[in-house]
Amino acid sequence: MVSIAVLGYGIVGSGVVEVLNANQASIDKRAGIHIRIKYVLDKRRFPGNPVEDILTDDIETILQDPEVKVIAEVMGGVEPAYSWVKKALLCGKSVVSSNKELVAQHGAELLSIAKQMNTNFLFEASVGGGIPIIRPLNESLTADEIYEITGILNGTTNFILTKMTQEGREFEDVLKEAQALGYAERNPSADVEGHDACRKIAILSSLAFGMQVDYEDIYTEGITAISKLDIAYAKKMSCQIKLLATSQKEDQRIFARVSPTMIGSDHPLSTVQGVFNAVLVKGNMIGDVMFYGRGAGKLPTASAVVADIIDAVRHLNQNKICFWSTEKIQMMDLKDAPTRFFVRVAYEDFEGAIKEVENIFGVLEVVRLEEASKEFAIITELETEGLLQEKIEELQQRNGIKIVNRIRIEK
Amino acid sequence: MVSIAVLGYGIVGSGVVEVLNANQASIDKRAGIHIRIKYVLDKRRFPGNPVEDILTDDIETILQDPEVKVIAEVMGGVEPAYSWVKKALLCGKSVVSSNKELVAQHGAELLSIAKQMNTNFLFEASVGGGIPIIRPLNESLTADEIYEITGILNGTTNFILTKMTQEGREFEDVLKEAQALGYAERNPSADVEGHDACRKIAILSSLAFGMQVDYEDIYTEGITAISKLDIAYAKKMSCQIKLLATSQKEDQRIFARVSPTMIGSDHPLSTVQGVFNAVLVKGNMIGDVMFYGRGAGKLPTASAVVADIIDAVRHLNQNKICFWSTEKIQMMDLKDAPTRFFVRVAYEDFEGAIKEVENIFGVLEVVRLEEASKEFAIITELETEGLLQEKIEELQQRNGIKIVNRIRIEK
Repeated sequence: MVSIAVLGYGIVGSGVVEVLNANQASIDKRAGIHIRIKYVLDKRRFPGNPVEDILTDDIETILQDPEVKVIAEVMGGVEPAYSWVKKALLCGKSVVSSNKELVAQHGAELLSIAKQMNTNFLFEASVGGGIPIIRPLNESLTADEIYEITGILNGTTNFILTKMTQEGREFEDVLKEAQALGYAERNPSADVEGHDACRKIAILSSLAFGMQVDYEDIYTEGITAISKLDIAYAKKMSCQIKLLATSQKEDQRIFARVSPTMIGSDHPLSTVQGVFNAVLVKGNMIGDVMFYGRGAGKLPTASAVVADIIDAVRHLNQNKICFWSTEKIQMMDLKDAPTRFFVRVAYEDFEGAIKEVENIFGVLEVVRLEEASKEFAIITELETEGLLQEKIEELQQRNGIKIVNRIRIEK
Repeated sequence: MVSIAVLGYGIVGSGVVEVLNANQASIDKRAGIHIRIKYVLDKRRFPGNPVEDILTDDIETILQDPEVKVIAEVMGGVEPAYSWVKKALLCGKSVVSSNKELVAQHGAELLSIAKQMNTNFLFEASVGGGIPIIRPLNESLTADEIYEITGILNGTTNFILTKMTQEGREFEDVLKEAQALGYAERNPSADVEGHDACRKIAILSSLAFGMQVDYEDIYTEGITAISKLDIAYAKKMSCQIKLLATSQKEDQRIFARVSPTMIGSDHPLSTVQGVFNAVLVKGNMIGDVMFYGRGAGKLPTASAVVADIIDAVRHLNQNKICFWSTEKIQMMDLKDAPTRFFVRVAYEDFEGAIKEVENIFGVLEVVRLEEASKEFAIITELETEGLLQEKIEELQQRNGIKIVNRIRIEK
């Protein structure tokens, strides 16, 4: 028998207890030993709940108990999670975590402490909920040099964009529904502004490239400016608008970005609908590989946490190699990254506006929507983002022209 | 430094050498030690090829060399691969294999020898080419009870069906093109009759359910009877015809089947086009997870072989747990499995034929195609396959009616 502790009895924490109970026989078989939950840490009491008897609010009880070999940290937030996880590792315990803030900020350090203590720090559930992506990156795609990771990493925004697309509704309207359904929080900014996806792509990039990618260095744009008309344009061009998080390596530098992006129907990520997430990985030998599944939710996330617990139990006192150095990778200025933009142009005089566009961008295909009067859209050629931003700015300055919106496009 | 040997210098074998050379620095870093190819076994000579100096045609040289710790078997076919792999494991060497015939037939035994010798038998490349699926099944989806695996596991047939769909062409015609392009072999029966997919789903089922699934027990139907008109019907119903390999657990029994299947556009596998493959796994906690990538090809397959080599090198003298007992799982008679059929009915008298259908199946929606005169199609309700086959047979016996084709449908 091996004893574990669960830190936090919220949605994921109660899910972890549920998964361990529901599949106990097969889990114990796969772990090679019976896994017993000795403690659940939470400040709250849960009268009548089966965990009542093993609840504690004292982290020291858990840290000082030599029987506890593995700790599942599922509280979220950087503190006190960071201090406690660090202490636990330094006590020689293995830690598994679903906490993307913690992993994005302190992953490299915690991995190095785990290595030094000959124990493990695992965090499959911190990215993509139930989707196996961290372990495949570390253990399956090892023969490849990875040069790109692009994902739909946030279920809330994908749900909203999918609804907007399917039902032709506005962002604010669908957001309210998502909040009512519990898919979006009352303060939705972490999701809709792209911060959640940003932390996740920071983690994936760090692992794929083996060096520290700070989430603060990743350009992040959310979906709040996407309107029903943008979606209508996308449909007309057989595209979908998705919140893509991408990280790409060129020479020894990377550029990374979270932004709404129009993608064509032949893009592998274009079919990822609703709360589903997916991660596309490109390697120099394997080509394109994609991992798809539920990016959030109690049981899928708990399933990933429990898989990590099983892995930690199988590897007590044996550090699993994971390449993520604390050294910072060199970031390319996003201005230098190649991009194409879809740009909506409002005009007073159509012929004049087209001429201005041609003067600045050359001759481009023009897209028009019946329901959008006094405006048209263009899709630029592939150029550096900096150059394109300048050209768009220049167009904006011209008489009688207003830029309504611009969205990156991959087609 | 650790020495390895590659058995077979065909497409995959030369790919393995190429991947090891191309990504040597990162591979050695991930393996934690320099990996050196000491031998390549092949009966042929390759004058001028860099492997010329390390070629041997004597398996005993390799088996008797204590420096060789890992052997990559990439020859294909059951013999002599089986005898050699067994001997290698019994010598205490780890073996990695891309050979689906070998793994489907002898996987359980070879795994048990590896366990007994405290070494490893790994076979990521035997299913799905470059797609990581074996390792995720063994190490990532461990918290779940898996109840279904369904995949598009053969690139040749998916290429043919995709082309037929996109270009409205007949099977024979596209097969010839696939042969000319090297996507199909001169004798294409292993692919187009479904035998290749059958061996792969046998391997995946055995791993997912932990017991032996014999490929001979899996009902297998290929794509040779699929015509341009079947595809036109599918299109009309917003469906795609895919060669699906599926294995599903109910109580303690499974049913497994390889067959062309119509799937709707909301099915996660419907967007897998051309030579791409994908595997959909359903677990009782994680929900749906899908793995997608290139199911064949020199470098993707070699990438998976090399990832296994790295894993074997990391785990010398340390057996990785893999649950696949030699005990046979109980198979459900396919007749008892629930299914729906799309059935094409040729008639002499439309009204009479419709009446006969209603007598046997009840009132069903009828699908008609402009280009298919004197026939219509029906989609049955969900019933056991045995009952449906009887009803179809009964309809066939009625006057003036002929069943043109029937295809399973999931919609």
